[in-house]
Amino acid sequence: MKIAIDAMGGDNAPEAVIIGSIQARDEYNLGIILSGKEIEIKRILEKNTSNFNNIELINAEDIISNDDKPVLAIRRKKDSSMVKALYAVKEGKADAIVSAGSTGALLSGGTLLVGRIKGIERPAIGSLIPCIAGGFCLLIDSGANVDSKPEFLYDFAIMGDIYLKRVMNISSPRIALANIGTESSKGNKLTVETYELLKNSHLDLNFTGNIEARDILKGEADIVVCDGFTGNMILKTMEGTVQELMNGLKAEIMAGMRSKIGGVLIKPALKNFKRKFDYSEHGGAPLLGVKAPVIKAHGSSNAKAIKNAIRQAKICCESNVNELIEQSIMRR
Amino acid sequence: MKIAIDAMGGDNAPEAVIIGSIQARDEYNLGIILSGKEIEIKRILEKNTSNFNNIELINAEDIISNDDKPVLAIRRKKDSSMVKALYAVKEGKADAIVSAGSTGALLSGGTLLVGRIKGIERPAIGSLIPCIAGGFCLLIDSGANVDSKPEFLYDFAIMGDIYLKRVMNISSPRIALANIGTESSKGNKLTVETYELLKNSHLDLNFTGNIEARDILKGEADIVVCDGFTGNMILKTMEGTVQELMNGLKAEIMAGMRSKIGGVLIKPALKNFKRKFDYSEHGGAPLLGVKAPVIKAHGSSNAKAIKNAIRQAKICCESNVNELIEQSIMRR
Repeated sequence: MKIAIDAMGGDNAPEAVIIGSIQARDEYNLGIILSGKEIEIKRILEKNTSNFNNIELINAEDIISNDDKPVLAIRRKKDSSMVKALYAVKEGKADAIVSAGSTGALLSGGTLLVGRIKGIERPAIGSLIPCIAGGFCLLIDSGANVDSKPEFLYDFAIMGDIYLKRVMNISSPRIALANIGTESSKGNKLTVETYELLKNSHLDLNFTGNIEARDILKGEADIVVCDGFTGNMILKTMEGTVQELMNGLKAEIMAGMRSKIGGVLIKPALKNFKRKFDYSEHGGAPLLGVKAPVIKAHGSSNAKAIKNAIRQAKICCESNVNELIEQSIMRR
Repeated sequence: MKIAIDAMGGDNAPEAVIIGSIQARDEYNLGIILSGKEIEIKRILEKNTSNFNNIELINAEDIISNDDKPVLAIRRKKDSSMVKALYAVKEGKADAIVSAGSTGALLSGGTLLVGRIKGIERPAIGSLIPCIAGGFCLLIDSGANVDSKPEFLYDFAIMGDIYLKRVMNISSPRIALANIGTESSKGNKLTVETYELLKNSHLDLNFTGNIEARDILKGEADIVVCDGFTGNMILKTMEGTVQELMNGLKAEIMAGMRSKIGGVLIKPALKNFKRKFDYSEHGGAPLLGVKAPVIKAHGSSNAKAIKNAIRQAKICCESNVNELIEQSIMRR
């Protein structure tokens, strides 16, 4: 198995990406294809390993940044590390791709170059949200499709279900629909119609009904289905709230001598607590609905996060997630 | 001035509602009309005051609960405390209404009985979100209109602007549109079209562009405009995240002896920190776009929160918020 890696994508690229890729090769016994500036990649490789087996390079002089318009970047930046890595998948030289670069570009590139699975109109991004009490929840779509139809959301549920069953080993994932209330009649036009599709599905889906946004982090569902606009709002509200709360708490604790001492004493507990949210443990966000595994690693990924994202791509390949999605979509 | 109060609405009704109403009467020198079970109200009044001036009672034997379907409840529960308080406003016996009861019912009742301002198609709920670094942000619509058009969102901005200028004394409120990115081209169909309306408005609106959900709590905008579905998602995600984070942090601190001692030391700081989020300081959520001030107090309101919500209703009346909204809507 060979995984193509966008060596230049992400805040800590190329160093962290390359180190994580070497670690993945060693731990998971797979081939890696590093796409990016060859001279730079070679220099970092030589610094970090003396074994060059199972490492291939694709030279790409350009880089797609977060400021580039996604579709344009994919079409025009043909010599970018991301586009060349995507072509490696398209041409069958690689089985999957991992990138910590622009989410929008990877989404467009995955859809345009790797290609949609037959029957899937809209691929979607699934984000694993760590729940505080343990476990996690797959939020799908977390940003790909800002304007969605009920049929898209139904497909998101099907894809998320297969992903959790196969990649995360959850036997019967609880699927919930993000909504403003738990009653079946609640919601906007999109969610009311999606509810009916999910409720009446003849597929083996464990649909548990609507979930309110306040209950998502409680771990009441394994999969939360929504349109990409809503998913983005949920994800970024969580991010902002955690950040502001932790900053505010810190400032308050540092404001007095007594609490400052208390702050020193709770520091290890705080560190432990923060580890629970550590995205690097969970790998990246899969782009589901395309013909090969496409994994978006977090922009600020360190080597460990990259290694885990590559592991995730490997499991996707081994468990035939994409073939299973195609089969389910044909039966829906 | 007379404010009608739904004495039976809210988790702590009627006791906390009545005590808060007495306090408001005494502090703000206004008349209160308490709607609810007369015998019960009288009993509580007698326990808490010996001065019955400026207090009127409306007997209402029924109560609208959160389980009632809003529109049906307003139409059928004619003898409920909320409907009778709304009629007091409709008939000109009261200048405004405060209720800590069902949000949906108050929204329907406000729209059906108090009536929409001419030119306003959809009244909206504005929720004041306390920002951690200080200040607050008005999230409008926070749940009334789950299916919205760009024109509705434009009106929400106009109404929020007048509310903050007149009631909260903010001279030029920064208005932002909740969106998935800050660039003007970002968003779904609704937000892209709303952006254009806000940008090209000839009214005196301080439109600062799009805001991502992660930046709302940072206090980067005074008003965040969105459809009611999105507003509900943002508000409840914040609520759930704060709750889970505080619970998780507490559990982690209590898990070890060292951090337990630290926990005792930071307790006053934590209490201080929590006070910053205290909704009871900020009064309730105004239903904007109806002909008289309708204030939804938090369901778990204590006496102080009720008192502040009544104060807010009083300021709305004094500052002619509703007339000013009507004038702006005519000029838009």
